[in-house]
Amino acid sequence: MVITRKVEFSASHVCRNPRLSEPENRKLFGMAANPHGHGHNYVVEVSLAGDPDPVTGMVLDLKELKEVLNREVVEPYDHRFLNYEVPPFDRVIPTTENIARDIWRRLEPHLNRDRHKLHSVRVYETPDLYVDFFGDETCSA
Amino acid sequence: MVITRKVEFSASHVCRNPRLSEPENRKLFGMAANPHGHGHNYVVEVSLAGDPDPVTGMVLDLKELKEVLNREVVEPYDHRFLNYEVPPFDRVIPTTENIARDIWRRLEPHLNRDRHKLHSVRVYETPDLYVDFFGDETCSA
Amino acid sequence: MVITRKVEFSASHVCRNPRLSEPENRKLFGMAANPHGHGHNYVVEVSLAGDPDPVTGMVLDLKELKEVLNREVVEPYDHRFLNYEVPPFDRVIPTTENIARDIWRRLEPHLNRDRHKLHSVRVYETPDLYVDFFGDETCSA
Amino acid sequence: MVITRKVEFSASHVCRNPRLSEPENRKLFGMAANPHGHGHNYVVEVSLAGDPDPVTGMVLDLKELKEVLNREVVEPYDHRFLNYEVPPFDRVIPTTENIARDIWRRLEPHLNRDRHKLHSVRVYETPDLYVDFFGDETCSA
Amino acid sequence: MVITRKVEFSASHVCRNPRLSEPENRKLFGMAANPHGHGHNYVVEVSLAGDPDPVTGMVLDLKELKEVLNREVVEPYDHRFLNYEVPPFDRVIPTTENIARDIWRRLEPHLNRDRHKLHSVRVYETPDLYVDFFGDETCSA
Amino acid sequence: MVITRKVEFSASHVCRNPRLSEPENRKLFGMAANPHGHGHNYVVEVSLAGDPDPVTGMVLDLKELKEVLNREVVEPYDHRFLNYEVPPFDRVIPTTENIARDIWRRLEPHLNRDRHKLHSVRVYETPDLYVDFFGDETCSA
Repeated sequence: MVITRKVEFSASHVCRNPRLSEPENRKLFGMAANPHGHGHNYVVEVSLAGDPDPVTGMVLDLKELKEVLNREVVEPYDHRFLNYEVPPFDRVIPTTENIARDIWRRLEPHLNRDRHKLHSVRVYETPDLYVDFFGDETCSA
Repeated sequence: MVITRKVEFSASHVCRNPRLSEPENRKLFGMAANPHGHGHNYVVEVSLAGDPDPVTGMVLDLKELKEVLNREVVEPYDHRFLNYEVPPFDRVIPTTENIARDIWRRLEPHLNRDRHKLHSVRVYETPDLYVDFFGDETCSA
Repeated sequence: MVITRKVEFSASHVCRNPRLSEPENRKLFGMAANPHGHGHNYVVEVSLAGDPDPVTGMVLDLKELKEVLNREVVEPYDHRFLNYEVPPFDRVIPTTENIARDIWRRLEPHLNRDRHKLHSVRVYETPDLYVDFFGDETCSA
Repeated sequence: MVITRKVEFSASHVCRNPRLSEPENRKLFGMAANPHGHGHNYVVEVSLAGDPDPVTGMVLDLKELKEVLNREVVEPYDHRFLNYEVPPFDRVIPTTENIARDIWRRLEPHLNRDRHKLHSVRVYETPDLYVDFFGDETCSA
Repeated sequence: MVITRKVEFSASHVCRNPRLSEPENRKLFGMAANPHGHGHNYVVEVSLAGDPDPVTGMVLDLKELKEVLNREVVEPYDHRFLNYEVPPFDRVIPTTENIARDIWRRLEPHLNRDRHKLHSVRVYETPDLYVDFFGDETCSA
Repeated sequence: MVITRKVEFSASHVCRNPRLSEPENRKLFGMAANPHGHGHNYVVEVSLAGDPDPVTGMVLDLKELKEVLNREVVEPYDHRFLNYEVPPFDRVIPTTENIARDIWRRLEPHLNRDRHKLHSVRVYETPDLYVDFFGDETCSA
């Protein structure tokens, strides 16, 4: 069984590789390479796989899940310029792919237990573009 | 190939375990433990896996699928107080996890055939919280 | 200029008039007359009309608006059985129309000021049914 | 890692099998068998599985993905009567299942590379009905 | 007070004026002039203005409103090619504007009463384009 | 009759008044005062009031409306840091209220004609917060 909870944050980012030239960055990332940055209302769906606890009927106490998501995802990311304020994006390009991987890295130590495991992290940059990350062990291709 | 159809129902429920004390229930379920109950517009997505019939081009006749979902899910659940009116929730806590499992149990006898199998049941309690159930045989963790 | 903020709550209700017979209630309200009650994820959009403050560029400080909506609407309504726990619904049928009027009554003393007025309260019972209330002075017909 | 991009098109179709009688078609497809056709705002979600390129941080250059989707899906399907204008639907019933399979067939030659593979094609006929296709090799049942 | 109910139908249409040349039609309507037609999932929101009945707490019995909308809008429009099957679109171009006006014309005789009036008809052709019609007496400009 | 078209852009902004102290800005705007900025997927709905042209059945040629919105709104705003790159936000705080007013100012010269007038500009900063602007002549309070 997989349970999924959604949270949201608003942030800005720039997509550029400092080792590439300006024209190369523009060709690759288009307007997203604009060095002033731009922003999104990011939507994150975090999924846990496990079995419901027989006492509570829940895979994980929803209040606890909400607290972990707020502390580990919303607080560090919300209303931030990711490249300047949220490591590792001072040195990693904050594409949707890399944001999903970083959210997984932040959540995994807090959500993997005997009864349930972190299953996936989905990040919507816009309603038309999203990434699902299942952890590095999963060969998702 | 997997085909998914969405249905909705409005119901109320209480999340409490009668073997726990009032403070334990409040700590675990928060406001959802309020014994008067509260309610949701539940959204259910039922998915069948199979191959399209060569004559119809459909995995399952959509009218038939709609009839099964109305008869087995919408009619017994809609406009009900689950704990009092919809077994097994007189003795099972109607968390989203347990609702998904019960909907699977109700649908499986009517939807598994040679050509297609019930693949998953997704239940949204709110737009921000949902559960996917794949049947007990599936080790989804 | 009109600024609108959305909040949500989950509640249950029964729609019956105690002065009508059971068949009359069933004929009028259908399944919504079920005395056990049923529930919804209600969505409320509160709109203020006014001009932005020249110092802040805002019609009303958004944090203040959020606090008023949480205190006056979400806290009293959320996770409640309206007929039993939220006056005046012990004596007024909690139709969407009456809920919108009650939310207006709760908010108006806190949101009408020199610079802005409460403009409207929209309540969605489901995504397919909603009511807009503009205050009793407005002849909306 | 799986990245998904959404595109939309508006088209009309008829669901009938010319080898069946009129009553058989009506029984099977209902109103969708009406020979004049009817239409939908189709939503397509195309998913690629792969690892982000270390230089770009992206599984696939989003501009390139967008160009492929527009050229291979939106241009041939948008504002068309599928049965009359978009092969193979002159001889294949344009059910959602068959549309998903055809979109896969059109995209696969352009999206499978060393670093990433076409993972799935989801087609929504309406918000309440959608199909996921994973390619013929996948035993999704 | 204004109460709004949403219904949906799927239909196809062609936007062309037979008194214009093919290039003029293409210039004016673009792909929508394709004579084979194309389709949409139309969403209609019908609003009534009035005061709640003191006995029922409702502006209009919701079951009655639903029956009127199904009989007058969904049944004649759903799964139809508007230009060929739904008068007046054999002689009136089925733009979103004209569809909204026709739905008003169909509903007004059934929804205007002492206690409430038809207030507006909103028609979404896609989620990105919609029209509000308030009846001919309203000078909405 | 009012016709509405939706467009979207992604941008970042900072809400601070340079004449206020840092604590005053934090108190007033909260996290939105963070000088690095943060971002949103803004959604804009532009409404025109008028009567359909008898030849076309449209209030305004949709292709022309789309071109105006792209040229006057999407191109200058999309993927920009509003405070640094989009006048007048070098000197006006880019609250949702002020963005709605600026979009009105940009569109009005291009959309007011004999047959139709710019009716309103709605700007969503998030799905939970939006502003409607009707032009300065309208006394919307």
